[in-house]
Amino acid sequence: MITGFNHVSIVVPDLAAAMARLEQVYHLKAGEPRINAEQGVRLVWIDLGNARLELMEPTRPDSPVAKFLERNPHGGIHHFCLNVDGVDATLGALAQCGVRALGGGSAQRNVHGERIAFLQPKDFFGALVELEEHGDAAH
Amino acid sequence: MITGFNHVSIVVPDLAAAMARLEQVYHLKAGEPRINAEQGVRLVWIDLGNARLELMEPTRPDSPVAKFLERNPHGGIHHFCLNVDGVDATLGALAQCGVRALGGGSAQRNVHGERIAFLQPKDFFGALVELEEHGDAAH
Repeated sequence: MITGFNHVSIVVPDLAAAMARLEQVYHLKAGEPRINAEQGVRLVWIDLGNARLELMEPTRPDSPVAKFLERNPHGGIHHFCLNVDGVDATLGALAQCGVRALGGGSAQRNVHGERIAFLQPKDFFGALVELEEHGDAAH
Repeated sequence: MITGFNHVSIVVPDLAAAMARLEQVYHLKAGEPRINAEQGVRLVWIDLGNARLELMEPTRPDSPVAKFLERNPHGGIHHFCLNVDGVDATLGALAQCGVRALGGGSAQRNVHGERIAFLQPKDFFGALVELEEHGDAAH
């Protein structure tokens, strides 16, 4: 079950430059960069109080995020993430309605160890949607 | 000053079909459709507790949203919206850092009468960002 909004994620060509610009121009301070080796991304989160922004850059040329940058060299909105009370139960219920998850349909872990999954964009109006498991509605 | 996250907005090819699917498959109920005649869009909001989703469809062929659908026939993420304590003051401060607002830089009103503005995507890592004025951090 979807319980709230978690974050919107933006791919940027240069994470360090983006972090500096976000702080100097927009007064938004990012946390420490983390690496998701499986996805081939380096990312930071910016806490907005009720939700977060995520900035990502690729760590290798075959990262899906590198391919996104080839199509969008200035960067752009990559996905958004909704909280769910349980990833497996939610994926199971969605599968019964024909909604497909990427990567074979099993949950992964994000850089903070939280259980996540991504839905097939065609099954959510062309938007790439991440689901993140939380026991409550807070992010 | 940016005070919080407001919504992420998705363009869909058929708003009524999208609302029905969102409720049946994802158990997310949209509010009543509203029309923004200036932007040429019909839109609904889905309250997620801490933030909202927005779904939009074009109401006329020359709507910017119609052009988005030509490039993305299944739909897709169009923009996201951040809360600010004052649109004019925020646009003024951002302009001093070279950040441009779309449409000449003056605030518009959304379908609920709230004061809004859109930033030039190149000035926010390729992402189209809406600013919406609220006296406090709540959406």
